[in-house]
Amino acid sequence: MRLALGISYNGLAYQGWQSQSSGQTVQDKLEKALSEFTGQRVSTLCAGRTDAGVHGLMQVIHFDTPAQRPEANWVRGPNALLPHDIAVQWAREVPPEFHCRASATSRRYAYVVLDSPVRPSIDQGRVGWVYRPLNLERMQQAAQHLLGEHDFSSFRASACQALSPVKTLMRIDISRRGAYWRFEFEANAFLHHMIRNLMGCLILIGDGRKEPNWILEVLAARDRDAAAPTFSPYGLYFVGPRYEARWGLPEHPTLLDGLPGAL
Amino acid sequence: MRLALGISYNGLAYQGWQSQSSGQTVQDKLEKALSEFTGQRVSTLCAGRTDAGVHGLMQVIHFDTPAQRPEANWVRGPNALLPHDIAVQWAREVPPEFHCRASATSRRYAYVVLDSPVRPSIDQGRVGWVYRPLNLERMQQAAQHLLGEHDFSSFRASACQALSPVKTLMRIDISRRGAYWRFEFEANAFLHHMIRNLMGCLILIGDGRKEPNWILEVLAARDRDAAAPTFSPYGLYFVGPRYEARWGLPEHPTLLDGLPGAL
Repeated sequence: MRLALGISYNGLAYQGWQSQSSGQTVQDKLEKALSEFTGQRVSTLCAGRTDAGVHGLMQVIHFDTPAQRPEANWVRGPNALLPHDIAVQWAREVPPEFHCRASATSRRYAYVVLDSPVRPSIDQGRVGWVYRPLNLERMQQAAQHLLGEHDFSSFRASACQALSPVKTLMRIDISRRGAYWRFEFEANAFLHHMIRNLMGCLILIGDGRKEPNWILEVLAARDRDAAAPTFSPYGLYFVGPRYEARWGLPEHPTLLDGLPGAL
Repeated sequence: MRLALGISYNGLAYQGWQSQSSGQTVQDKLEKALSEFTGQRVSTLCAGRTDAGVHGLMQVIHFDTPAQRPEANWVRGPNALLPHDIAVQWAREVPPEFHCRASATSRRYAYVVLDSPVRPSIDQGRVGWVYRPLNLERMQQAAQHLLGEHDFSSFRASACQALSPVKTLMRIDISRRGAYWRFEFEANAFLHHMIRNLMGCLILIGDGRKEPNWILEVLAARDRDAAAPTFSPYGLYFVGPRYEARWGLPEHPTLLDGLPGAL
């Protein structure tokens, strides 16, 4: 039987998603809980790996297991065994042709920035930070240039394992609430560090250090050195993948409503 | 010279506001940083002490010091010395008759609740949690009964040191955004644990276990045993005190915009 699970986590205490020998990753904690719950070794795949310090609102995983349980138990059981900063949000039996990564039609991320002369305190580890005020129109102009299919090599980490640097960016929504800015990104797929590299550039444009059209030069260069430094991991949230309706998976990540920024 | 400072902090790592021999309180960390910054022992008073696990959006403190610094340095200097989850938001020189506690005309608190079948994960330590759905109208009806001047003995912790249990509750605003509820309270002053005890009752009414009019019985009893158990500290935020405009202190706590719940 193939199961898909929606997973939320606070990334602060973990060395990213992907399993490591340290055991201090979200995948390690999750597979340990699922293995304990089923009494069998469980190996999972995920829709989008996240870096250390990056949070997950609705990561989606799948795995195959002979274990038979009611769907509600696949939520309650593992949650009783998981650390308090990781939770299973839902579980669904899916047909064997469903693949959490390959079946995803797009991925969404959100980035939250605190725009304040004073560094984060209560929000430490949950927001990026700028002390120069940002301008919405400048950032929106730059974002327009990024939409569509492009070679995003300038925003790609050297460790990136993607087969192609060409991705389609469908949406960048920028909103603010007081001192909190929220950036929402949706693409068919993202390169390693792509959003943190895009954020670095949008911030330079938003605070006036670069002009909106500068983003065109950066894109055209296809060279990581042309872009801004990689922005902090702490404001980045993997909102989740989208799938075709036929798989019957929950659409809206509940925890997105808890992020600052949107009106 | 008397100085007033606005302080924000994440209460998770601390044993509350008030100084203890352990040194693991917000006041201890703050006085250590201020003493190091001025080169002299600094003793502070605060507008409202908070319990362990309770967060501060704009705590206000005052202290007297012979040290002379530009106001901006009273922010930057201590912030470089404070732990990353405590920050000075602003500093103002005030006349010697200003007193952060006695001059406050009211105090504001916010309580954030995650209403979800699944326990908190990413928000762990920042929200209270209910797994039974809440009803807005029922809670608003009950809240109406609490407004005005009352003897709040039923909502008072046994350790409370207030001279009188009679307080004036000016405002209870309840709003939601998706699975997040925000409760905002404003009173001339609050008793020890008063908000967490009020929250316990509002939740019992919101989820249908008690009727809205039950709150009248609880109030009338003037007996702590008549009310619900004290609700979790983790969703509670001290928004801050209010003062008369003549003191010239900042009014709006920037970080309030980052809390989930309000529309």
